[in-house]
Amino acid sequence: MRAVDVILSKRDGRSLTREEIRFFVDGVTSGSLPDYQASALLMAILLRGMTPDETAWLTDAMVHSGVRVDLAEIPGVKVDKHSTGGVGDKTSLVLAPLAAACGVPVPMMSGRGLGHTGGTLDKLESIPGFRVNLSLEEMRAALARVGCAMIGQTAQIAPADKKLYALRDVTGTVESIPLISASIMSKKIAEGIDALVLDVKTGSGAFMKTEADSRRLAESLVSIGNASGVKTEAIITAMESPLGRAVGNALEVVECIDVLKGGGPADLIDVSIELTARMLVLGKVARDRSDAEQKARGAIHSGAGLERFRQIIERQGGDPKVVDDYARLPHVGERHRVTADREGFVSRLDAELIGRASVALGAGRDRVEDPVDPAVGIMVLAKPGDAVRAGDPILEIHYRDRGRLETATRLTSQAIAIGDQQPAAARLIVGEVR
Amino acid sequence: MRAVDVILSKRDGRSLTREEIRFFVDGVTSGSLPDYQASALLMAILLRGMTPDETAWLTDAMVHSGVRVDLAEIPGVKVDKHSTGGVGDKTSLVLAPLAAACGVPVPMMSGRGLGHTGGTLDKLESIPGFRVNLSLEEMRAALARVGCAMIGQTAQIAPADKKLYALRDVTGTVESIPLISASIMSKKIAEGIDALVLDVKTGSGAFMKTEADSRRLAESLVSIGNASGVKTEAIITAMESPLGRAVGNALEVVECIDVLKGGGPADLIDVSIELTARMLVLGKVARDRSDAEQKARGAIHSGAGLERFRQIIERQGGDPKVVDDYARLPHVGERHRVTADREGFVSRLDAELIGRASVALGAGRDRVEDPVDPAVGIMVLAKPGDAVRAGDPILEIHYRDRGRLETATRLTSQAIAIGDQQPAAARLIVGEVR
Repeated sequence: MRAVDVILSKRDGRSLTREEIRFFVDGVTSGSLPDYQASALLMAILLRGMTPDETAWLTDAMVHSGVRVDLAEIPGVKVDKHSTGGVGDKTSLVLAPLAAACGVPVPMMSGRGLGHTGGTLDKLESIPGFRVNLSLEEMRAALARVGCAMIGQTAQIAPADKKLYALRDVTGTVESIPLISASIMSKKIAEGIDALVLDVKTGSGAFMKTEADSRRLAESLVSIGNASGVKTEAIITAMESPLGRAVGNALEVVECIDVLKGGGPADLIDVSIELTARMLVLGKVARDRSDAEQKARGAIHSGAGLERFRQIIERQGGDPKVVDDYARLPHVGERHRVTADREGFVSRLDAELIGRASVALGAGRDRVEDPVDPAVGIMVLAKPGDAVRAGDPILEIHYRDRGRLETATRLTSQAIAIGDQQPAAARLIVGEVR
Repeated sequence: MRAVDVILSKRDGRSLTREEIRFFVDGVTSGSLPDYQASALLMAILLRGMTPDETAWLTDAMVHSGVRVDLAEIPGVKVDKHSTGGVGDKTSLVLAPLAAACGVPVPMMSGRGLGHTGGTLDKLESIPGFRVNLSLEEMRAALARVGCAMIGQTAQIAPADKKLYALRDVTGTVESIPLISASIMSKKIAEGIDALVLDVKTGSGAFMKTEADSRRLAESLVSIGNASGVKTEAIITAMESPLGRAVGNALEVVECIDVLKGGGPADLIDVSIELTARMLVLGKVARDRSDAEQKARGAIHSGAGLERFRQIIERQGGDPKVVDDYARLPHVGERHRVTADREGFVSRLDAELIGRASVALGAGRDRVEDPVDPAVGIMVLAKPGDAVRAGDPILEIHYRDRGRLETATRLTSQAIAIGDQQPAAARLIVGEVR
């Protein structure tokens, strides 16, 4: 098989065979396929598309570029959740302890923040001592002991994805539903789960800006998961403005602990409970949706979720006392308040711009090798729909560096709109795919 | 400027700016743009296309990746011809001496054969001693002395094209009219000519298989040339079957000398005279088309063209006695005749398959680094339209190696069709673009 013939085939709009896709992925993994041929094929895939079969084969080849973890010796239906990424999107830190507390083993492999979105690993690492780089053996042991492990992708999991993603990032070939689908699902399938709940974000702060694109992505993901023997369902949730009130690593950890203590913002609670309930049904520890929601809320009220989070932190080397004493988390003393310049209702709080402002403060990264500052971030004091008077605070920026603050406030000033009319309450959970 | 933004722009169907195109070409030339980004952009260009402006800017940037030769000190209007490549397509060796003999300086830079098509340089090098790798200084001197230089592309001419072509060849990005146009025209514009006649081939043995594609390519080439100050026109000629009767390097040289002596096959004479006449008008040595054709034919009848070819050969170190004694050219003793298996009319003699058979004999190359055998090739004894009886010879294969002969005869057997009806005479000159 010649690489150029595979490229020509896709370039001219034909479907690739399973063997051609395997040849491409194996070549990328081993390095025998030059990057310049891989990137030409990626561009042809982006512009010509892939059938569901091709996408499933691509995913399968990427899974087989590494190991597919076998968690059979852990009892129960192993369930994970994956979000396509947003701003203030911190539900993993709520739902993983809740689901584990309700008896569902949660082997969760997450990513780091990139671009304007945050990442679960960065948030967890803001807890002093917390180790996300567990080996697969340590992951198994944590799962057996505390019912949950929250770790980063190991080198054995879908190594083809790591190489392909790095190449896509620099060749303008990120925004392809088949390529995105295969990237997400190959890692999830390889981690050894039985079921998966997806949170596909939609809106200005999401990767997919329109509901139609988000639905197409959700359908693609669900179809691949089910075809690979992982029972998969998806919800589509709004990402026009940040989820919850905290944006920034340690700030988001605090907010999640608040939710586990029975407090926290309503939108974050709603999405977290929705996702947890679906995990409980898929995990066969709840009879139905209503029973599942009751159990999820029960784990908050009883404190079982909070206790489980404490155990997860301790198991992974972190300081469990942060749960009771937020001052043990990284924080900065400097605050800057962004205020309303007029009276009215907050009509818009653009998630992408808030996310970019948070990155500018140091909470995220533009390049994978950049370090992040766990302490900085943005608290949303007035959410869309809230009434404000001139001078009322809308955002509280936690900053370390004045130069970075300036960049951040320039971005936040574009993010905020205040109108005369109270905007209609936006739907939070926009749809589902199963 | 970031390379990925340029890629995204073209990927999403936008036009690139002149600066973006310059950034791309400069990056390829200097090596600062990685191949994987260049190939992603090439694929996006192939699939999204380029406007005439973008194509002109691309050509201009490629010209400026090297030197644009200044031939101002040579008197007269310098005119070259370029063919998009065919089988038995040997008109350069006829028209360059004829045009020079009629007073038009011809600074001709040609290429080598690749794939099933032949190349002028390989043909010239079958003349013992002939040097095609003249420096630009030697080219100027030859032009001043004998009115013609026939050389290969020097390293100073459009170096970006050399790199881009190598990359396109292995990334499935060859068949793009803007990319083909910029590749051809950048080299032609850089060689310092004032005017150019293009012979765009169309049909099974051509790069462009349909007349519509050939016309689009011709229009693109003519438009770029004129925009760059090179007065350019094109004819579109048929390439369903080989041009003339000889396919193979030394065999083709003999056929060209035959034409210069007043003999040779009618189709080769017709295309050569058509191209020469256009060169004479563009070169301002003929009043009009009819005067030009008379002058071109006159240079054959008077022997001036033949004498000029002798001078060109001598000037470039070759043995001018080949003109009178074909035995001084490389030749092989072994002949194999491919005969008609039935009575009828030759209805098809597929140019691409005959070209591939010639390559299989050793006359051409599959890879640029392969050597060619100057002596081997194929003589067409019966052309499409000719009546044959069973057993009559159709092709005479000049071979050196029996194994290669077998491959060649397998290909030629697929190339020949004999029918009951005499086929309508195909048009040779299909159209023109000016």
